[in-house]
Amino acid sequence: MSPAPAREDSSHRVDPPFGARLAAAMDTHGPLCVGIDPHAALLDAWGLPDTAAGLREFSLRVVDALGGRVAGVKPQSAFFERHGSAGVAVLEETLAALRQAGTLAILDVKRGDIGSTMDGYAQAYLADGAPLAADAITVSPYLGYGSLLPALELAADTGRGVFVLALTSNPEGAGVQHARGPAGRAVAADIVAGAAASNAAARAAGELGSVGLVVGATVGAAVDALGIDLLAANAPLLAPGVGAQGAGAAELQKVFGPARGNVLASTSRGVLQAGPGAADLREAADRAVAQATAALRP
Amino acid sequence: MSPAPAREDSSHRVDPPFGARLAAAMDTHGPLCVGIDPHAALLDAWGLPDTAAGLREFSLRVVDALGGRVAGVKPQSAFFERHGSAGVAVLEETLAALRQAGTLAILDVKRGDIGSTMDGYAQAYLADGAPLAADAITVSPYLGYGSLLPALELAADTGRGVFVLALTSNPEGAGVQHARGPAGRAVAADIVAGAAASNAAARAAGELGSVGLVVGATVGAAVDALGIDLLAANAPLLAPGVGAQGAGAAELQKVFGPARGNVLASTSRGVLQAGPGAADLREAADRAVAQATAALRP
Repeated sequence: MSPAPAREDSSHRVDPPFGARLAAAMDTHGPLCVGIDPHAALLDAWGLPDTAAGLREFSLRVVDALGGRVAGVKPQSAFFERHGSAGVAVLEETLAALRQAGTLAILDVKRGDIGSTMDGYAQAYLADGAPLAADAITVSPYLGYGSLLPALELAADTGRGVFVLALTSNPEGAGVQHARGPAGRAVAADIVAGAAASNAAARAAGELGSVGLVVGATVGAAVDALGIDLLAANAPLLAPGVGAQGAGAAELQKVFGPARGNVLASTSRGVLQAGPGAADLREAADRAVAQATAALRP
Repeated sequence: MSPAPAREDSSHRVDPPFGARLAAAMDTHGPLCVGIDPHAALLDAWGLPDTAAGLREFSLRVVDALGGRVAGVKPQSAFFERHGSAGVAVLEETLAALRQAGTLAILDVKRGDIGSTMDGYAQAYLADGAPLAADAITVSPYLGYGSLLPALELAADTGRGVFVLALTSNPEGAGVQHARGPAGRAVAADIVAGAAASNAAARAAGELGSVGLVVGATVGAAVDALGIDLLAANAPLLAPGVGAQGAGAAELQKVFGPARGNVLASTSRGVLQAGPGAADLREAADRAVAQATAALRP
């Protein structure tokens, strides 16, 4: 069966660090990451069955069409887990195909736990040689920024990245993320401060950090209102909601200000609904890259 | 490959609801749930290799030894995900073995997302016929209690349960969970209020609710200090840290007060380190049940 995650094995060593690799990929391809979110309705729209086989066909078509053409691809783990271990095997294959294509894989898993369990998640997704190793993963800090340390450390060791959920656009998120601690600082501001500390060495070296943040492009005035300094975090900023029905240049300026250059816009529906044809997917991705570039790097 | 999660398929309909089934199981077996946390060091201590095959041997031995003898078993997903799809296949087998044994499976996955992604996680773990269906799962509310709605709804439809992270004992947790919203209510108190609302109908029917909460047994005075009313939540309370090196009767009284009867104590190391022999595991589990019963139901 599967080999043990080879934590000490440096033969697959990913170098340079994630932040630098992401910055280079954004310079080459533009600041866009395309999500792979194959929910049942999308599989149906592509004429595929809602099975692991349909999921495989969908995911590999996206990688075939877009691999080597965008800065990153972001598979959404939930839609693979829906199909159990057969779906997770498709996720392994998708991650391998992205590696083959030389495209950064940002696996959206939003894991978060403490101690040896957080370390288990880190080994699952950030260890060299792990079956599900990605270039970066998303993590969730309900147990506190410090609880993520095993993932932050392993990512640093293996040249990988972590995007920490910070400030999201969904209306229910404010109840947690805008709440304030005894010193008056908001939860989201604490998370951003944590990332800033983690990225301080990269900042001193003049490189983008490898600890990213998830910040919704449509959070409006919240960044300012909560006193958050995104530029100081020196973090890649994974931002759902740029372009099309989402935030345009003016709103992005308001939300991200001078940190706009660190934003990786994340889109999925806008590109995936153009499929299943490879040419159509490419055209939609090119359009989305142009929109994101215009909005973020005017 | 795997069938689509059969959301409309009621042939596996789980009845009565999770809360009532858990209450009955605690009455029969005592208020203890044994975790399956097969990290590398534990596999090694059992003389097993750190592979999916070792994981399988470990997990099925635990189910063989304890199935039918404790109120619940809680596999920790991280340690299965570490081994990629082969590990997730072992998790499927473990969940099936628990079903066969008639023991409640509480899958510790701490998922949390929004919209169709949260729905994807719900389908993965709470839909009838899904390969990874469990009796209940843990979820994480960094995106707000309301973001969990797709899971809460599907769990209600299929007679399953959800344990929402509320108040944890790790020191880093307070920065998020003790922070207060504009009305002065702490984040953890908001989550507990959400569960109380979700469990109101069960309360009116005189039944334990199916939306549980994760509350560390060693949070000390935090429950009181944050003005949390755990009894009003009418929620199963999954509590790591009871007995042995954890909280004793006096601390549990302080933390849970009159809600002590709803506590399901979660232990793993204390029982698992007695393995790999089945008789030793059973003896350790019996001891842990006795400790939890003495501490929680004096």
